Amino acid sequence: MTDVTGLTVGVLGGTGPQGKGLALRWARAGIGVVIGSRSAERAEAAAAALREDAGVEGIRGLDNAGCAEAADVVLVAVPWDGHGELLEALRDQLVGKIVIDCVNPLGFDKQGPFALPVDEGSAAQQAEKLLPESRVTAAFHHVSAVHLVDLSIAEMDTDVLVLGDDREATDQVRALADAIPGMRGVYGGRLRNAHQVEALTANLIAINRRYKAHAGIRVTDV
Amino acid sequence: MTDVTGLTVGVLGGTGPQGKGLALRWARAGIGVVIGSRSAERAEAAAAALREDAGVEGIRGLDNAGCAEAADVVLVAVPWDGHGELLEALRDQLVGKIVIDCVNPLGFDKQGPFALPVDEGSAAQQAEKLLPESRVTAAFHHVSAVHLVDLSIAEMDTDVLVLGDDREATDQVRALADAIPGMRGVYGGRLRNAHQVEALTANLIAINRRYKAHAGIRVTDV
Repeated sequence: MTDVTGLTVGVLGGTGPQGKGLALRWARAGIGVVIGSRSAERAEAAAAALREDAGVEGIRGLDNAGCAEAADVVLVAVPWDGHGELLEALRDQLVGKIVIDCVNPLGFDKQGPFALPVDEGSAAQQAEKLLPESRVTAAFHHVSAVHLVDLSIAEMDTDVLVLGDDREATDQVRALADAIPGMRGVYGGRLRNAHQVEALTANLIAINRRYKAHAGIRVTDV
Repeated sequence: MTDVTGLTVGVLGGTGPQGKGLALRWARAGIGVVIGSRSAERAEAAAAALREDAGVEGIRGLDNAGCAEAADVVLVAVPWDGHGELLEALRDQLVGKIVIDCVNPLGFDKQGPFALPVDEGSAAQQAEKLLPESRVTAAFHHVSAVHLVDLSIAEMDTDVLVLGDDREATDQVRALADAIPGMRGVYGGRLRNAHQVEALTANLIAINRRYKAHAGIRVTDV
């Protein structure tokens, strides 16, 4: 199994619920975490709050460029609106690094959630196009932010589909999922099949509304 | 819970692996099944084989038009190629009926499976457009045909995402999933969110290849 202890994971958009939740769980698993935000002050405030609330060490906050620079592996957890612009600005800092895109391009109207069309096919493929020298993967789309930050939930009952064309990179991202108790990383196909994984979040939100749940996905027979 | 005993389910394309497998499981659950095929003879031969191999009553075979006519609920399990043409031809027989589309528009190349673009958005939305007087739902995309026909597998370890805009119709289709041991029908959103559920089959095929599995999906926290 791939060893991820000793890695530093950067979380771009780490002050949002999804990024903060994953940062918290990784830090509790003993992985070094850097929260990134547009403002270094807000990033450090979020990191300080996590250190205090959750009693974890090893989380600090920097601006997004500093976060990308400092990290070995970078999770992109920013809103879809602004996704491309941010990645373009961080191209140099992300050269050679594993980038994990967990962004779900979704719209909402009176009928609920729906998948937005993306010129490049998916958020992950947009990242791949903007970061030709990075090792882009897609994962962590379906993990409930509510469950992540709720430490009374000891085990996250969910699999994480990990997509990408670089075997070593997807293995490392799978190991980062495995590091969180209850979670399991499952290879989920090539990056060109990322659209439906991102878009499925619309279905999970519809499920959450119908069943008053925080739904996740498990893959059976694996 | 919606009662589905006494229903007759028609399976268009019922001589293919997916259709045959579901027909078998439903018949074993005591639901009346009509297998449909272009040729009534091949449909009846498939039905006879299932009656004999599986020792089930209540399966017969008809041509697709006869199948659509005879059934209360109709599963569309034909190849994507020819999907629209068939439904257009059966519009009259399908008026007022619940139609379940389980078709996955997929392509394959050297890099494996991928989702095909569909003008209407998805196979299910194409069905909705071609069958304006039917109650179109989408379900049973991810069920392993290999597991369905293997009666040594008593319980199908999978959930079935059921999509549609007609609550009573999706409830009935969920009940048809619940009727198969181990299977569970879960509401999965409106029909406009069917594309990603169909396309996710490409990811499951990639998973099957990587893990030598027949992967299915479970929804957690529901």
